[in-house]
Amino acid sequence: MRTSQLLLATLKEVPADAEVISHQLMLRAGLIRKLEAGGLYTWLPLGLRVLRKIENIIREEMNQAGAQELLMPVVQPADLWEDSGRWAQYGPELLRFKDRHQREFCLGPTHEEVITDLARRELRSYKQLPMNFYQIQTKFRDEIRPRFGVMRAREFLMKDAYSFHINWESLEQTYQVMFQTYNQIFSRLGLKFRPVLADSGNIGGSSSHEFHVLAESGEDAIAYSDQSDYAANIEMAEALAVPDQRPEASGVEKATVETPQQHSIEDVSQFLNIAAQQCLKTLIVKGEEDSLVALVLRGDHNLNAIKAEKLSAISSPLTFASDEEIEQQIGCNVGSLGPVGLSIPTIVDRSAAQVVDFVCGANQNGQHLTGVNWGRDLPEPELADIRDVMAGDPSPDGQGTLDIARGIEVGHIFQLGDKYSAAMNANVLDEQGKSVTMIMGCYGIGVSRIAAAAIEQNHDDKGICWPAAIAPFQVAILPMNMHKSARLAEAVAQLYDELTAAGMDVLLDDRKERPGVMFADMELIGIPHRVVLGERGLDDGMVEYKSRTDKDNQHIARDEIVSFLSGQLKKSV
Amino acid sequence: MRTSQLLLATLKEVPADAEVISHQLMLRAGLIRKLEAGGLYTWLPLGLRVLRKIENIIREEMNQAGAQELLMPVVQPADLWEDSGRWAQYGPELLRFKDRHQREFCLGPTHEEVITDLARRELRSYKQLPMNFYQIQTKFRDEIRPRFGVMRAREFLMKDAYSFHINWESLEQTYQVMFQTYNQIFSRLGLKFRPVLADSGNIGGSSSHEFHVLAESGEDAIAYSDQSDYAANIEMAEALAVPDQRPEASGVEKATVETPQQHSIEDVSQFLNIAAQQCLKTLIVKGEEDSLVALVLRGDHNLNAIKAEKLSAISSPLTFASDEEIEQQIGCNVGSLGPVGLSIPTIVDRSAAQVVDFVCGANQNGQHLTGVNWGRDLPEPELADIRDVMAGDPSPDGQGTLDIARGIEVGHIFQLGDKYSAAMNANVLDEQGKSVTMIMGCYGIGVSRIAAAAIEQNHDDKGICWPAAIAPFQVAILPMNMHKSARLAEAVAQLYDELTAAGMDVLLDDRKERPGVMFADMELIGIPHRVVLGERGLDDGMVEYKSRTDKDNQHIARDEIVSFLSGQLKKSV
Repeated sequence: MRTSQLLLATLKEVPADAEVISHQLMLRAGLIRKLEAGGLYTWLPLGLRVLRKIENIIREEMNQAGAQELLMPVVQPADLWEDSGRWAQYGPELLRFKDRHQREFCLGPTHEEVITDLARRELRSYKQLPMNFYQIQTKFRDEIRPRFGVMRAREFLMKDAYSFHINWESLEQTYQVMFQTYNQIFSRLGLKFRPVLADSGNIGGSSSHEFHVLAESGEDAIAYSDQSDYAANIEMAEALAVPDQRPEASGVEKATVETPQQHSIEDVSQFLNIAAQQCLKTLIVKGEEDSLVALVLRGDHNLNAIKAEKLSAISSPLTFASDEEIEQQIGCNVGSLGPVGLSIPTIVDRSAAQVVDFVCGANQNGQHLTGVNWGRDLPEPELADIRDVMAGDPSPDGQGTLDIARGIEVGHIFQLGDKYSAAMNANVLDEQGKSVTMIMGCYGIGVSRIAAAAIEQNHDDKGICWPAAIAPFQVAILPMNMHKSARLAEAVAQLYDELTAAGMDVLLDDRKERPGVMFADMELIGIPHRVVLGERGLDDGMVEYKSRTDKDNQHIARDEIVSFLSGQLKKSV
Repeated sequence: MRTSQLLLATLKEVPADAEVISHQLMLRAGLIRKLEAGGLYTWLPLGLRVLRKIENIIREEMNQAGAQELLMPVVQPADLWEDSGRWAQYGPELLRFKDRHQREFCLGPTHEEVITDLARRELRSYKQLPMNFYQIQTKFRDEIRPRFGVMRAREFLMKDAYSFHINWESLEQTYQVMFQTYNQIFSRLGLKFRPVLADSGNIGGSSSHEFHVLAESGEDAIAYSDQSDYAANIEMAEALAVPDQRPEASGVEKATVETPQQHSIEDVSQFLNIAAQQCLKTLIVKGEEDSLVALVLRGDHNLNAIKAEKLSAISSPLTFASDEEIEQQIGCNVGSLGPVGLSIPTIVDRSAAQVVDFVCGANQNGQHLTGVNWGRDLPEPELADIRDVMAGDPSPDGQGTLDIARGIEVGHIFQLGDKYSAAMNANVLDEQGKSVTMIMGCYGIGVSRIAAAAIEQNHDDKGICWPAAIAPFQVAILPMNMHKSARLAEAVAQLYDELTAAGMDVLLDDRKERPGVMFADMELIGIPHRVVLGERGLDDGMVEYKSRTDKDNQHIARDEIVSFLSGQLKKSV
């Protein structure tokens, strides 16, 4: 394609309302444009080329894995959501409306209901199973604050797949195939990524993995082992006891110290000149029927709300007690809480239970206790894993220690089990002719989000550095002052034809622009390979080549550039 | 693909609520399924294959024509529709709703507003023009009575293109390119079609063509010349005067005859034993400010409402006077109306003005006049073209006579002019640096509707007869009792591999079904070429071949079947 035939809508300035680098670069490179209302985007021709390449890789791999593509409607009748029970459960992200006959509908944020309805009508026998259906379709979630461009848009493109099984063993097999397929997809997309164990959230079901593109700007924290494949969302990663055995106590006695105006762990540890991990912090949350429960953690550890709210003694969602409630029931302020002599149920993190001679609040304003020991100064505690893991923690699989990386979630696979099939009566006959509820899996990929995540991972100060597989074009031809030389124009056209004939995706910049503008634009939009041709090159038979991430130009003979580029493209796939 | 890996959801029974053959066959062949709510469909894997092939042909030809693909959102903010003025104008087919912040949105039935908004932001100079943008995107129209399956669904897939120009000459050029491109697209789809002159309706603008797939069941009537390219929607086709000159009158005198209980033209012509074309019928419609206007037509002609309401004397939309209004102002019932002595403005169709010695109502109940002549018994009339053309009428281009065919509208191209660009201030700078309003064209194709139209045109009593280019598969392999013969299974797998390697789109029916079921299913879903393999064929080295529309099988040598099929496929493209 020639730039003269393309809407090349590059911007010099960083748009004011774009916070993250991918959003800035997608606007500046002219890949997307926002509509006046937030969270709605038009994909410009250049951006759509990226989106389609992502789609095609996903489609090829899903087909390869035996999944069947279909297409379900964007608009879904409320009836189906009543069937599954989600019409009442789903929050305001589900955009609901009425048609001209006052029947209720929603814009599909996901398609479990529609596919389960299809399956209960069309699937009759175990002989038809397993089946795995997928679509690449527009979704809508009415986010309260859409942001970060297509990273968290309201309307977006998703690949969603749903598998149907006669039993859990069959689901497990397909789940493994999808796990491998997702690895294959993200590898082919050219992204650095990690599959991580995930909390399955409110979509229900049991086993679940997220696929994260690694990027410093990622919203999610991932804990991974430095010696094994273990990786999990920090929400999920199990924190083992650190150290794994409680050391001997030194024998000092418990003592009360005055700590006026010292509230936080930081305050207290500085004031007493001890390490934060030698202090224990006590948090008061709501238990069942508005009772209060104390949670005790090491001073340098963070509470993991998701782990805590799964405990039966604690109400979900996790709710902290108010200052007034604490004052009233414990008799002190938040900064002086401690587990000694506490009359409410107390749950102690495993690592906090290994600390000896510790410091904690005295449950008296302005006082702390020092030299406290479990089993001596207070009973041996009830243990649970209620903290976030930290870099340096032992990996829960017993191999190596954990490190923390940041990631952007681009895929998620779930074992749904019978959550939807039971609610919606999706049954088939088994080998004995008995009606059984189908078991389901579901497998999502955020198609439009991948474009943004790829940029978060691959950019520099000049712009985007696309992975070769999803670049809008593979090669840019930049002629220098072509409009002044008919001879150069002819040579450029010839090179364009040769590269195109060799199957390359080429953008020829035929604008009457200064070289500086052309270089800057092609770097901004991130075309992986660049060939520069000028009058001089016609004389000496050479062209200039640079990959997007190379520092310097190479001089390549014109006669060899086609095979040279073919070699470069093969390398990058 | 193997049928064991495909949701082959064929039905023996004709679904009760499907009225038209394409809807029946799309359900029976398992191409689509309706959701509980009307007008919403899931495209099953087999149907989606057809849809994607249609999409790809459209995409290739649009790209070839220099149009740029982009993707606009399904959900559109009301603001843009306020800008264009259509938020108030558009009827209840525009589905409107509010988001969680109570901002107003709609589901896009078309995208003029969004693209014009993009163009006014991104296009600055005549140098960037012309530009032609297209998308293949989900549309929604809240039809009051969705029907005929995907032919008139609420959610459907459309290719819509919008071009931007510095002036009308440039629009005319692109319009011609699109006209040719549409011809090319429908030819490649393998459909019998006609481009016809069309009324541009309320989308505005001037020149407009519809593309119709010809089918007896079509909703639209098309008038076309038997000797030239002339074709027009019957709403638009000009009716010339028939005969082209008024014959001599016979000299008989006007007379009043009693015609008790004779109201319709059929009644009167039978009662008086004369031809319907010798009678004139008079219709009373609303004029300006609730005045009445008489329209006079030949007894065998039909009023064309669209032509009539374009006349300045007549109110639009065309509204007939009530019986009471007629009784009150003319003094007789509808069955006795006539132009003689009428005190309201009267417009006479050209052909009605050529009739001599005619019969018409006497404006007295139960009486008609005979032997009436223009210019003698009443003034020479005010003429207009207000009737539908009929088969046998002269073609308005002066070449040949008209015939009438029925068609299904699948494409529509418009010269929009500045309707949207003026309302939304979409301006660019011209060569003199002056700001000018861009001129627009728009070009639609009903992608999902094409699948239905293709079936209306191509089916028989056994099922669908897909044109080769859009068939879900090109070749079906039907093994006879393969599950009893390992030798046959091996030969079949080998044939499948050979055909697939030759680039063919093959469906291998590996179900344990009786041959009769397999034949019926493959005919129902309309695969163009069928190869049958059995044990016997292994011995004599022959296979059976039949195209979907052949009557009889051919015996082809197994060694030659690949090249034979290649030849058949080339023929059909």
